Amino acid sequence: MFEYARPLHELIEQLRKFPGIGLKSAQRMAFYLLGLPAEEVDRLVQAINEVKSKIFYCSICNNITDVDPCLLCTDPRRNDEQLCVVEEPFNVASIEKTGVYSGRYHVLLGSLSPMKGIGPDELRLEKLVSRLKNGNFQEVIIATNPTMEGEATASLICQLLKDLPVRITRLAMGLPVGADLDYADQLTIRKALEGRTELKS
Amino acid sequence: MFEYARPLHELIEQLRKFPGIGLKSAQRMAFYLLGLPAEEVDRLVQAINEVKSKIFYCSICNNITDVDPCLLCTDPRRNDEQLCVVEEPFNVASIEKTGVYSGRYHVLLGSLSPMKGIGPDELRLEKLVSRLKNGNFQEVIIATNPTMEGEATASLICQLLKDLPVRITRLAMGLPVGADLDYADQLTIRKALEGRTELKS
Repeated sequence: MFEYARPLHELIEQLRKFPGIGLKSAQRMAFYLLGLPAEEVDRLVQAINEVKSKIFYCSICNNITDVDPCLLCTDPRRNDEQLCVVEEPFNVASIEKTGVYSGRYHVLLGSLSPMKGIGPDELRLEKLVSRLKNGNFQEVIIATNPTMEGEATASLICQLLKDLPVRITRLAMGLPVGADLDYADQLTIRKALEGRTELKS
Repeated sequence: MFEYARPLHELIEQLRKFPGIGLKSAQRMAFYLLGLPAEEVDRLVQAINEVKSKIFYCSICNNITDVDPCLLCTDPRRNDEQLCVVEEPFNVASIEKTGVYSGRYHVLLGSLSPMKGIGPDELRLEKLVSRLKNGNFQEVIIATNPTMEGEATASLICQLLKDLPVRITRLAMGLPVGADLDYADQLTIRKALEGRTELKS
């Protein structure tokens, strides 16, 4: 059986651990690193180390940041009456990029998943509840993923907040823009039907 | 415009430089690194540094190795009469994995590409010619890629070696195994036709 030289083999194994990176991609990346000038490699290694040493979670919203509280929590131009609850820090980036939301965020750092050992306690929902009790929020937008885990998390949060005087909403589910009905899965079509909007009443 | 915290942004930019890694993949990788325990990150950084410090090109065949000459050049069980010429070190791995070739290799470390500034001089073909003159090779298998650059490189090598007493062969081009004629491109079908093999004559 063919084997790469030891250090190369080890690097490929490390790179394969990244999400979405299979053996072929890891090999390509390793060979790319091999061919890179030493100073470029040093920049990469430095960037990795900097991220690990300088980035942490915001003490208010759990988003990743290099200042605490994070810029989204302290920005005075943002709306204090809306709170968007997401699973992961990169979900904040996805919503920010749309440019249509200007409220605050709360990052759960996960979603309910018995498989991964994430129960209600791990999501530290008491932090979310106390933010809502002490803040001036009028609406909580639950923007967890439209997956089994995300749905379960949304239900749990809805349950927890039901006695608070806030409106609770959920991101719409339906056909993605540009999709073809023929290719959409049944569940999505069902959601699109259930959530159909009025064009003319 | 939404921007990640500086160190994270820098890491994403570095990761995007990898071949086949776009913005989304780079973001996922960066967030994965963020969530990784420090010792795992250290292992990755160490693997990168080891590869850069311990891996180099074999002085005989140009393959990557951590000993010189490389194990493929010194293995006494390999056939000294066949030489397989490939563009890149990972092409050696691809051919080795088939298990059907047991000769030696010569890695060009590139292919003719005016766009990338790679001409005949950069491929140092004189090294290949001198190997063939001093060795006991009976056949040179040109296994450069079936691309414009690979074909040009194959032609050039064939031209250079035409007066040497060696057989020169080229990897067959045709339909990949499992392919569907409907989806194959015209050039591939043309090559498959031109290179058709006799079933019964």
